[in-house]
Amino acid sequence: MKDLELQDTLGPEALDQLFLEARSQNGWRDTPVDDATLEQLYDLVKMGPTSANCSPARFVFIRTAEGKEKLAPALSKSNVDKTMTAPVTVLVCHDMEFYEKLPELFPHGDAKSWFTGSPALIEETAMRNGSLAGGYLIMAARALGLDCGPLSGFEADKVEEAFLAGTTWKVNFICNIGYGDPDKVWGRLPRLSFDDACVMV
Amino acid sequence: MKDLELQDTLGPEALDQLFLEARSQNGWRDTPVDDATLEQLYDLVKMGPTSANCSPARFVFIRTAEGKEKLAPALSKSNVDKTMTAPVTVLVCHDMEFYEKLPELFPHGDAKSWFTGSPALIEETAMRNGSLAGGYLIMAARALGLDCGPLSGFEADKVEEAFLAGTTWKVNFICNIGYGDPDKVWGRLPRLSFDDACVMV
Repeated sequence: MKDLELQDTLGPEALDQLFLEARSQNGWRDTPVDDATLEQLYDLVKMGPTSANCSPARFVFIRTAEGKEKLAPALSKSNVDKTMTAPVTVLVCHDMEFYEKLPELFPHGDAKSWFTGSPALIEETAMRNGSLAGGYLIMAARALGLDCGPLSGFEADKVEEAFLAGTTWKVNFICNIGYGDPDKVWGRLPRLSFDDACVMV
Repeated sequence: MKDLELQDTLGPEALDQLFLEARSQNGWRDTPVDDATLEQLYDLVKMGPTSANCSPARFVFIRTAEGKEKLAPALSKSNVDKTMTAPVTVLVCHDMEFYEKLPELFPHGDAKSWFTGSPALIEETAMRNGSLAGGYLIMAARALGLDCGPLSGFEADKVEEAFLAGTTWKVNFICNIGYGDPDKVWGRLPRLSFDDACVMV
């Protein structure tokens, strides 16, 4: 139970690790990532909020050479090396039948009925909330001291044929995970200013 | 420049604050959130990765009674009270013409040309990366000691008519921000187990 004191802001080192100094990685150190760490990662990610707790995100953790070889032909050229050498490559997916779990995940009401027969709402909800979980994944990995290399340059149909055949899962994006090689990080790109991206009302 | 030591995992209190003990809020304490905090929040969120640094997310921070009144008719009934009383209500938006900023944001190549004439790719990229930024917003707010109450129960066309007319921005979801009232938090809902949501390859 939370007490009535306000929570503090995290310290500057934590803000650096999560946001300000964290960088997308193009190369990796040899340090492996063990399966227990991936379970701990999921146990953080799953707690992030989704609408009506719909929890559409699903994750394929590729750690083996065989898995990487199956993935390689689906990647754009510039994403092959960094993915083949990453300790873990995560397919960030969502289940297009996520609503089948709503009686368990949201027992307050008949949330499943909001979706049945509404393919546009299903797709929008899966994409929004699956992507939110992708954001939680990146933040949770960084919170655990891991580095990320997210990427969208791949052919989704090939990834789905290789890894998701016979399921109702679709791939959203891919995120390499491990301990980054700082020598392979690119220069930081600019960001939009507050005034370019935000409005105060 | 990062040194070659591995980063530590954040401490248990930080993991609680970001993920494990953080809860979606239905009521708020009187403590206000000042504009400087919102600028600090954006300065964290903007650093989160997006594909080719495309940065499609835009944010409308509603802090005034007039702004709240304009928003109220667009909200589902159960979302009105908690939104009217929240210190700040954020419209998490994305700019459907985000690619116009790519010459500035991604000077490595002609990334703008990937999108021109491809409305499906524009929409998918805006939704994926705008939602990722929504995930960063929730995590950044929590990192700053704030609480969140994200919600999808609203009529997007009414929100856009009231706040985004004449722009190329679309609303994705809404997130109330402030210091939550722990007495108004609901019981924690279940989550999918690792084996239900994850596959190891």
